[in-house]
Amino acid sequence: MATSDAEVKVLGTWASPFVMRVRIAMNIKSVAYEFHQERLWEGKSELLLKSNPVHRKVPVLIHGDDTICESLIIVQYIDEVWPSAPILPSDPHERATARFWAAYLDDKWFPSLRAIGMAEGEDARKAAIGQVEEGLMLLEEAFDKCSQGQAFFGKDQIGYLDITFGCFLGWLRVTEKMSGMKLLNEINTPALLKWADRFCNDAAVKDVMPETEKLAEFAKMLRGRVRATPKS
Amino acid sequence: MATSDAEVKVLGTWASPFVMRVRIAMNIKSVAYEFHQERLWEGKSELLLKSNPVHRKVPVLIHGDDTICESLIIVQYIDEVWPSAPILPSDPHERATARFWAAYLDDKWFPSLRAIGMAEGEDARKAAIGQVEEGLMLLEEAFDKCSQGQAFFGKDQIGYLDITFGCFLGWLRVTEKMSGMKLLNEINTPALLKWADRFCNDAAVKDVMPETEKLAEFAKMLRGRVRATPKS
Repeated sequence: MATSDAEVKVLGTWASPFVMRVRIAMNIKSVAYEFHQERLWEGKSELLLKSNPVHRKVPVLIHGDDTICESLIIVQYIDEVWPSAPILPSDPHERATARFWAAYLDDKWFPSLRAIGMAEGEDARKAAIGQVEEGLMLLEEAFDKCSQGQAFFGKDQIGYLDITFGCFLGWLRVTEKMSGMKLLNEINTPALLKWADRFCNDAAVKDVMPETEKLAEFAKMLRGRVRATPKS
Repeated sequence: MATSDAEVKVLGTWASPFVMRVRIAMNIKSVAYEFHQERLWEGKSELLLKSNPVHRKVPVLIHGDDTICESLIIVQYIDEVWPSAPILPSDPHERATARFWAAYLDDKWFPSLRAIGMAEGEDARKAAIGQVEEGLMLLEEAFDKCSQGQAFFGKDQIGYLDITFGCFLGWLRVTEKMSGMKLLNEINTPALLKWADRFCNDAAVKDVMPETEKLAEFAKMLRGRVRATPKS
């Protein structure tokens, strides 16, 4: 493996919540890295295609001669190589719980959030909103159990589940803005509402969390491109 | 968390490759557990619904008062609670590589394998076969890199990626039997072909790997039920 002081490069894009996870994990560890921004509409770089030939996707972490792909795998790698300021809980059951909700967010919740903006027809849109709201209620309960009355899922500091969920907040706010709904609100998710503010204002986060306005403009452009692509 | 000597219960079904992962991990650690077999066609048990209210799926590991869901999260939990006979590699880059291929198997490869049997129409079937074959070639290459000339992805013993992939071998053999194709073969995947034999004959595996005949009967019944279910 690369020694912990080998050079680090992150391949990514500013708008990707998955890339943001890697950047926040590096900030938590106070390890310097070079950010290689992929050009969004001009084809993927040779370096990206060579580094992640299976999925051809960002983020990729290049550490010395080693290449690591997939955001949550990269976050775990970072936590293992630079053990100070731990990101995953040390207790095996708490680790398993954090991994469970992280997988739920990636496999179920975020696809539903994306579906709100992309849905064709009111029924599909309503179904997606229902799934997102149901997920937020589950996460509100999970926050209560994981945080044990402290500020974050990771208790007194940002941890694995904070990073996993928190990086979706930009897209959640864009969805709220575009739909006129408050998905995170005082009635159903009061603890998550306060947590979201704390997360976005944390020193490791604030410089990599995109502004909602800029992300909303990007989302409009993205949606236009997806809709303009003929279906096979 | 539960102490490592607390009682262990596994909720599962005999035919699930995901449940098999948990049972193999427990065998590797030589830890006794009670296997609670879910009844396949008679509704899920109260214990399962209470233990995994989000996904309502097996496997579930109950360890003392703690409940852990999702097969690969359970395998990692087992490796952390009972550290002798390690399942994950100790090197962070090797761990990341094992996690990468495990995620590939679950997210891409196994859905394609299932699609071969479920495909409607020859084109869909051929596309699924192509994806499975392409995946096997990638895994053949990965075996070469991970095993470093030894018997398993985990080098001299069964590790995380062996468990993840190996538990699909029963379903791979059923697919081969039903389609008359040799997906694992001497020409394209000679190393994996030998690895599969070693894996299935390992002491931690052989008692939980279902017979291909029995699994093929089960697959026929399952396919009949899926096809008989009206589409919404």
